[in-house]
Amino acid sequence: MAGAAAKNSETIGQTRDPAAMAAAIAQLTAAFGNRIVTSAAVREQHGNTVTWIPNQPPDAVVYPQSTEDVQKVVRICAANRVPVIAYGVGSSLEGHVNAPFGGVSIDFRDMNKVLAVHAQDLDCVVEPGITRKQLNEQLRDSGLFFPIDPGADASLGGMAATRCSGTNAVRYGTMKDNVIALKVVLANGEVIDTARRAKKTSAGYDLTRLMVGSEGTLGVITELTLKLSGIPEAIAGGTCPFPSVEACCNTAIHTIQAGIPVARIELLDALQVRACNLHSKLGLRETPMLFLEFHGTQASVAEQSERFGEIAAEFGGGPFTWTTKPEERTKLWEARHHAALSNFALRPGAQMIATDVCVPISRLAECVTETQADIEQSRILAPIVGHVGDGNFHLTLLIDKDDADEVKRAKELSQRLVERALAMDGTCTGEHGVGQGKMKYLMAEHGPAALAAMAAIKRALDPQNIMNPGKIVAV
Amino acid sequence: MAGAAAKNSETIGQTRDPAAMAAAIAQLTAAFGNRIVTSAAVREQHGNTVTWIPNQPPDAVVYPQSTEDVQKVVRICAANRVPVIAYGVGSSLEGHVNAPFGGVSIDFRDMNKVLAVHAQDLDCVVEPGITRKQLNEQLRDSGLFFPIDPGADASLGGMAATRCSGTNAVRYGTMKDNVIALKVVLANGEVIDTARRAKKTSAGYDLTRLMVGSEGTLGVITELTLKLSGIPEAIAGGTCPFPSVEACCNTAIHTIQAGIPVARIELLDALQVRACNLHSKLGLRETPMLFLEFHGTQASVAEQSERFGEIAAEFGGGPFTWTTKPEERTKLWEARHHAALSNFALRPGAQMIATDVCVPISRLAECVTETQADIEQSRILAPIVGHVGDGNFHLTLLIDKDDADEVKRAKELSQRLVERALAMDGTCTGEHGVGQGKMKYLMAEHGPAALAAMAAIKRALDPQNIMNPGKIVAV
Repeated sequence: MAGAAAKNSETIGQTRDPAAMAAAIAQLTAAFGNRIVTSAAVREQHGNTVTWIPNQPPDAVVYPQSTEDVQKVVRICAANRVPVIAYGVGSSLEGHVNAPFGGVSIDFRDMNKVLAVHAQDLDCVVEPGITRKQLNEQLRDSGLFFPIDPGADASLGGMAATRCSGTNAVRYGTMKDNVIALKVVLANGEVIDTARRAKKTSAGYDLTRLMVGSEGTLGVITELTLKLSGIPEAIAGGTCPFPSVEACCNTAIHTIQAGIPVARIELLDALQVRACNLHSKLGLRETPMLFLEFHGTQASVAEQSERFGEIAAEFGGGPFTWTTKPEERTKLWEARHHAALSNFALRPGAQMIATDVCVPISRLAECVTETQADIEQSRILAPIVGHVGDGNFHLTLLIDKDDADEVKRAKELSQRLVERALAMDGTCTGEHGVGQGKMKYLMAEHGPAALAAMAAIKRALDPQNIMNPGKIVAV
Repeated sequence: MAGAAAKNSETIGQTRDPAAMAAAIAQLTAAFGNRIVTSAAVREQHGNTVTWIPNQPPDAVVYPQSTEDVQKVVRICAANRVPVIAYGVGSSLEGHVNAPFGGVSIDFRDMNKVLAVHAQDLDCVVEPGITRKQLNEQLRDSGLFFPIDPGADASLGGMAATRCSGTNAVRYGTMKDNVIALKVVLANGEVIDTARRAKKTSAGYDLTRLMVGSEGTLGVITELTLKLSGIPEAIAGGTCPFPSVEACCNTAIHTIQAGIPVARIELLDALQVRACNLHSKLGLRETPMLFLEFHGTQASVAEQSERFGEIAAEFGGGPFTWTTKPEERTKLWEARHHAALSNFALRPGAQMIATDVCVPISRLAECVTETQADIEQSRILAPIVGHVGDGNFHLTLLIDKDDADEVKRAKELSQRLVERALAMDGTCTGEHGVGQGKMKYLMAEHGPAALAAMAAIKRALDPQNIMNPGKIVAV
């Protein structure tokens, strides 16, 4: 299995061709003038800058203003057979925006408009460069919101491309559930609409969900039709301390099973609470904790909060203190969204390694508990946060990247975590995506036949392997 | 566009090869003994028998008992290059199970077991031959149910293959939202699992949702992992009469927009109410009507029912009479599920033509109203039912198939209905699937580039075009 896993990360059918790249840049410059940039600083910003994965800058960065512009870029790159890498805000965690074979980064900075809000249909149409906060800012007066909230203020194009989720997924689903249709420029330069705006369809293959999560390897998203949700009449939120991480997990499991339609149920271990206290001045007790939010009518959020409190008490948790006051809730959730960043307060200057396993919820307590013991034995500083209503949790490994032994221990810990999740019928990535960092696990997760099917689809839609090569599947 | 549309329905890369078929049958007979049947009667039962689409029987029918058996069938068919057609209960409406090029029908009659119920994870694993009623019967003691409910008591394999839905979709989604993973035998005879049992994943291309709705053209489903829902604490249901179909649609639109989490909201026009009265002895007023159901706690279903009643009154509807008594609700929903069948009471011996458009809900009232006028002008008997919370509605055209003029008028009406829906950003099929009947509309719905992408995927996964050829895309 190790050999097979290695195969997926190492056999990449792309090479650099400097002459072809120079020709493409010349043609792009003729077409885009000062909207193509080749300075080292800008190129470096467009490679991976967030995690321990090395920065691999593209050869040029282009700033399109329309789908037609993107078509032009893709056609020039296809004619010269050089890679095309879509770029949102660069917040992805697995090296998705890196250019291991060089190529052209398409930065959607200038394509960040809301094109339409169909309030009656609970949907909107946006350009890929808009971020989730910008979108919700612009939706505010409509009484609607877009619920998917990864930690970073990511672009919607990137969020769709990585099939991301966040703290609201337990109630509102992931990007796969909230994208209605996409406009995509394919490797051949053709533009497709993956679906109509109707709520349901059985009209052929689900190209929408094939593109969601394909990380720019099958096409470049230039427009998204998104499902919106009504802003709830009432929102209640709060925190609940527990004696152990296991008690948190068991409470989460029972809350879901009881059918309480919790909107957010987030685990923080004691170390993560301490990091949030340091970074966001929360003053919470430094013990394992659940952060919660309930959406509904006034009566229903009160009922949900009460029922949750009873379940928590059964597992030794509490008191569950909750509020419907917006300012207090906002402070809490901002702190939660800054959890990853706040970890640097625990070890200034450390290098961060993100992990992202997800297991069936029945195995969650077991998986987290075994992982805690493993962290201890590995002697790695690694706070835990989890979208525990979905069985998804993250360790953030904080390491000294110059300490070879520590790096080795951290990598082994991360590897064992994935193996543990896979053994429990889980996945190596619940929401971050594959990028470069998780390719080595896909053979173990999917097996050779399914991975071969993915590679066959990739070759069918991108026979020259120019769309974000070196990510997801080796072809 | 008409020329392009024709292209998708007529250019099919398959031919009959009697010698190859005979060789395949000999090999299958050696492998399966009396579990392969070639009698004319059985073969005819395995072609389309439900609609006006002509019956095209396969050459043989095999009854597998395991995934390995299905692998054996597919490998023999692949080696001889003859078609493979998966068969559940044969209730599909667009000729999905027909064998236009002959081939082998795989009947899942003997693969109808529940393999596992993971109550803690709210999921179960089943074989494809189990029907929705059999599944819910077996789940009953678990407090869980599977919500997707097409009119027929369809098999789960067929339901996944057609991406079907039903009356509960407005609250619980369609098959795309309720299938977690599939085991699939590909055209090359390899078995894949499309995903793990974790609730979320970003680990590569979404093979699950590529297979859901692919109608057996990309592989044969041999196992399904399904999301289950908790049986609600309280269920309220009832009927609400309206002065017009338009008033029904507008009430549905406002109910959804108000955020009332209605579980079912079904339109029946006066003619359909009459058919249900005749077939199911309901005694309802023969006027446009909404059938409703609300799921939740006792307090919440009462609140939802009340708020709905207020909206209905604004559009001249009412009185809304509702009950939480199981026997009354059951009678109502059985009648609704028998709506299509009950239409034969309006015109005994008539031929039925099903239609299935779905539009953004903001266009629903307009689309249904224009369609009513068109029915009138076309002089066709065509009751209307609709999953109006999703913008999806059906006319059932009841015609004398020997009256050439009436057949022509019916076909033109059906054609105009699809064109009307497409012009409103809708789809030619909300839940029935493409099969043979809707192929001619896919070019107009998706355009040449998207349809070419679907064909490329089909060729990549089924290069010999043996998997249910002549359905969805011409290759």
